[in-house]
Amino acid sequence: MTDLGDIQQRAGQRRYTTCGELRAGDVGRTVTLKGWVNRRRDHGGLIFLDLRDRYGITQVVANPEHSHEAHQTAETVRNEYVLSITGTVAARPAGTENPNMATGAIEVVADRIEVLNPAKTPPFYINEDVEVEETLRLEFRYLDLRKPRMQRNLMLRHRAVKFIRDYLDARDFIEIETPVLVKSTPEGARDYVVPSRIYPGHFYALPQSPQQLKQLLMVAGMDRYYQIARCFRDEDQRADRQPEFTQLDLEMSFVDVEDVLTLTEGLFTAMFEELATKPILQKPFPRLTYAEAILRYGTDKPDLRFGMEIADVTDLVADSEFGVFSNTARSGGVIRGIAVPGQAGISRGQIDQLTEQAQSFGAKGLVWIGLLASDDRSLTPRSPIAKFLSEDEIRGMAERLGAGPGDLMLLVADQAPVAANVLGRLRVALGHQLGLVNTDVHAFCWIVEMPFFEWDEENGRWEAAHHPFTSPMDEDLEILETDPGRARAKAYDIVLDGWELGSGSIRIHRRDVQNKIFELMGYDEEEIERRFGHLLRAFEYGAPPHGGIAPGIDRTVMILAGEENIREVIAFPKNQSAQDLMMGAPSPINEEQLKELHINVVLPKPAGA
Amino acid sequence: MTDLGDIQQRAGQRRYTTCGELRAGDVGRTVTLKGWVNRRRDHGGLIFLDLRDRYGITQVVANPEHSHEAHQTAETVRNEYVLSITGTVAARPAGTENPNMATGAIEVVADRIEVLNPAKTPPFYINEDVEVEETLRLEFRYLDLRKPRMQRNLMLRHRAVKFIRDYLDARDFIEIETPVLVKSTPEGARDYVVPSRIYPGHFYALPQSPQQLKQLLMVAGMDRYYQIARCFRDEDQRADRQPEFTQLDLEMSFVDVEDVLTLTEGLFTAMFEELATKPILQKPFPRLTYAEAILRYGTDKPDLRFGMEIADVTDLVADSEFGVFSNTARSGGVIRGIAVPGQAGISRGQIDQLTEQAQSFGAKGLVWIGLLASDDRSLTPRSPIAKFLSEDEIRGMAERLGAGPGDLMLLVADQAPVAANVLGRLRVALGHQLGLVNTDVHAFCWIVEMPFFEWDEENGRWEAAHHPFTSPMDEDLEILETDPGRARAKAYDIVLDGWELGSGSIRIHRRDVQNKIFELMGYDEEEIERRFGHLLRAFEYGAPPHGGIAPGIDRTVMILAGEENIREVIAFPKNQSAQDLMMGAPSPINEEQLKELHINVVLPKPAGA
Repeated sequence: MTDLGDIQQRAGQRRYTTCGELRAGDVGRTVTLKGWVNRRRDHGGLIFLDLRDRYGITQVVANPEHSHEAHQTAETVRNEYVLSITGTVAARPAGTENPNMATGAIEVVADRIEVLNPAKTPPFYINEDVEVEETLRLEFRYLDLRKPRMQRNLMLRHRAVKFIRDYLDARDFIEIETPVLVKSTPEGARDYVVPSRIYPGHFYALPQSPQQLKQLLMVAGMDRYYQIARCFRDEDQRADRQPEFTQLDLEMSFVDVEDVLTLTEGLFTAMFEELATKPILQKPFPRLTYAEAILRYGTDKPDLRFGMEIADVTDLVADSEFGVFSNTARSGGVIRGIAVPGQAGISRGQIDQLTEQAQSFGAKGLVWIGLLASDDRSLTPRSPIAKFLSEDEIRGMAERLGAGPGDLMLLVADQAPVAANVLGRLRVALGHQLGLVNTDVHAFCWIVEMPFFEWDEENGRWEAAHHPFTSPMDEDLEILETDPGRARAKAYDIVLDGWELGSGSIRIHRRDVQNKIFELMGYDEEEIERRFGHLLRAFEYGAPPHGGIAPGIDRTVMILAGEENIREVIAFPKNQSAQDLMMGAPSPINEEQLKELHINVVLPKPAGA
Repeated sequence: MTDLGDIQQRAGQRRYTTCGELRAGDVGRTVTLKGWVNRRRDHGGLIFLDLRDRYGITQVVANPEHSHEAHQTAETVRNEYVLSITGTVAARPAGTENPNMATGAIEVVADRIEVLNPAKTPPFYINEDVEVEETLRLEFRYLDLRKPRMQRNLMLRHRAVKFIRDYLDARDFIEIETPVLVKSTPEGARDYVVPSRIYPGHFYALPQSPQQLKQLLMVAGMDRYYQIARCFRDEDQRADRQPEFTQLDLEMSFVDVEDVLTLTEGLFTAMFEELATKPILQKPFPRLTYAEAILRYGTDKPDLRFGMEIADVTDLVADSEFGVFSNTARSGGVIRGIAVPGQAGISRGQIDQLTEQAQSFGAKGLVWIGLLASDDRSLTPRSPIAKFLSEDEIRGMAERLGAGPGDLMLLVADQAPVAANVLGRLRVALGHQLGLVNTDVHAFCWIVEMPFFEWDEENGRWEAAHHPFTSPMDEDLEILETDPGRARAKAYDIVLDGWELGSGSIRIHRRDVQNKIFELMGYDEEEIERRFGHLLRAFEYGAPPHGGIAPGIDRTVMILAGEENIREVIAFPKNQSAQDLMMGAPSPINEEQLKELHINVVLPKPAGA
């Protein structure tokens, strides 16, 4: 019989040795290893097997003079066979140690080799880091996941999520599971829906996020909530989108913007200090207002790992002889530009390419001015429009843009949003192209004071930019009606290396403010009831001030792992057509299932029918 | 500007005081409290407000002589108003301290009271523990969750799940998220399905469990996996079933039964030592074979918190004059019974009730024999069939059943499964009715050596009792074909206080064994491919021996919390018709949604049409 202490001691222990743990100090021990054949080499009458598991690789030697039987079995094994090997740990012969392997000082001389399971030849190499077509990787994901890179990524994901949980748990947050079968609200992104068997014609929806439920948990007095929450959006897939994704959903009561930012910044700082391979560029994280971000970086997710900031020169060239500038300024547009370091001598071919790129981003054209270095430190412009610009104008623009001799100025004259967007995207493209991005650091920043409304073209009304329960900034309550486009919200984004990690806001908790917002959005009572009824009702029974944020887990781990696609940090992702190639989902279901669910399939008419 | 250390220090801190933290040592401090009005009392010109949050309750005094304004505001507030109160901590007047409250030594004398949000009168009391109809509780779940009991339950759930994660993380398990949109396999329970917009007539399914995916993770070399996994079953609801539920899904490579049991037992022991209010009755957990459990307790989920074990007396009464006994024995049946302590004098009315109960469980009848105490220590039977039984028979049965003077013997003569089931259920009913169950302890046990097959009446073939990938016991490989009904599996259940917490097994990892099992089940190749194709293919590329278990989180926490229904430990449960009464799900969706999903609703014809 065993006692309690014994059970705690034995729980989780292995009755064998992993492939990552043997060191020089283990020489002489008899061990049993279990794992996969990573590689087999026959050399000088010996067979060398590299045995692999999640923990590492250990070299095994089958020597016919030591064990004829083990050597015979070793002759039959191939890559990816699953073996159990018992043998003696020996120091590797001098000169054959491998300092790049944790177990490189030793090898195991096999007494006995048992084939636990043979393996067919895999469709791609597991022991070599060669490019494999993604379709094949996804179809054989269970083999793809054996690669060290994928093992590392999934372990990193586990560590990151565990870190988040520990951090929040230590700060009074409790994790609460919210349902996956919820109510469909046909707004925002498209819902995935689930037909009800019990109620014909009724459907559940899968949550796009637990937004309303987490607010209800605040009404319920749970004070501080988080959840590593699965979310679902039936949208056409982009490179870094998945039909289901995971976010850190968190919400706090009795807080204002500062509290949520401090908590989140503390969490991400500590997590990256613990898990990232690169330092954080700026601590505390810089905070940019939305307006400032758009002005200086042309985007609300600026990559701060390099400079090349946008500057506005409208005032300097409003009366320029160059008609494009003066006309744009006169018609309410702006002239903005960036300074590209060291590119004054750019070729015409490259300029043509940049111009095309700018046009594809929406610009009408791109003005370029190379600043040639000269002995007297004056700036000699190289530009097709040089003759239209005064020396003062060029000097003024160069100063504003921070351009010096040898640099190239790129300018866009257009309405402000277009100029911002074009230059923001050119900045990022050139930053990467010219190697200006410091990829040895991580650069976080906050975007604050986000716009409250955005204009909904389709319905001809102002819609909440973030979420209809987002609180306006106290200072802007007055202009909500008079100048809605300028009103700002208590909303914020956390941005990392040019990616938006997540958004959040302080919510409205007062019914009178909420009613006014709905009114401004032109909602009628029926629509309010249908879309938000149960939440508004809950708010009447004592809702505390509250707010939160929801950073994406997939993207955070992707950046931590140095990957460029979230599929690399998801165990079983769907492809870009929302298919699971390994399992073969989605797939047809049978008539009986359809009948039970009270639905019929309506196949689209074939083209031309 | 703040620096890193400062951010870590401030992250998660509050800029106010919770309602649970003030003690005598805080007297004299000026504090701000935020919370809900739990109760208001007007007494001697003063107004007392009990302010409540997740952390406790603090008494606030509004004294018009101290602050006229605060007193005026206090006069307007009602239960569940959300307040921010600034004031000074004072010792309660001698004699008015409340030792039952953590903050009972102090009160806060209000300088300023701000109403953050008013509240309508809630549909039920939050500050009193009175029975409320469950429909109302679920409709207003955000108010129901404010009750201390529900706050405690959700916090306990958080703690339990956090404990599991910490325990497994420390033992090399990594948590891996598996998809929620998977492939439908129309077997086992009914799938919830999700129509695909991109592929007309195709559907995803929500996973009944991540069974196949966790096995694929073992093939992928992840070695030790766990997940707090949401699972979905579209089944008719029973008292403790929900359309979506949560299980601890875990799987380990290179293990046998002993390893999984030791790990799981270590986890549950440590968790209950940490979180349960009651001790564990027996450590290590008793292990019963399935056959033994059925024989002794009539069920594979025995409640070991009391005795009253079933015993078989067939051999003692096979030749009895009492025809029911001898005929049953002759026809291959059994005679089994239990001893009910102290009930020899049971009334005829109670006997009739017991007999009815036994019949409702499937018995043809119930034999009862009271053992009257007498001076000469002989046993005088009180029974309508006493005259048919010899003294030896009665003495023998009493000895076997452990019945003494004053006890009642209840006997069932029937085929073994019926006798077991009837007596098992009578045992549990009587155990509770007579207060024999020791509710001051928790009793875990393992059920091992579960049957491998069960007979599938509908399809007229042997089906896997646990899962078609479950490994047979090595000893029973030979009888798989010759005597399938007797073959045992490497499958086990963990049972607590009469509830099954979860099942698990060691899986088959050899293709030849798997093929033989499928053959015995009479599957043809098409069926094998359709149901298990991708898993079998994966197994050809080097699958390690592996096994796991999946205890239910909802039920575990329910028992930890001392609740009798899993809805009490789920934040937003569905009712027994699978509806979310708070959100109003499921609900109709619009025509455009249906069209995009390529489906039509087919409403059932009204009755009589």
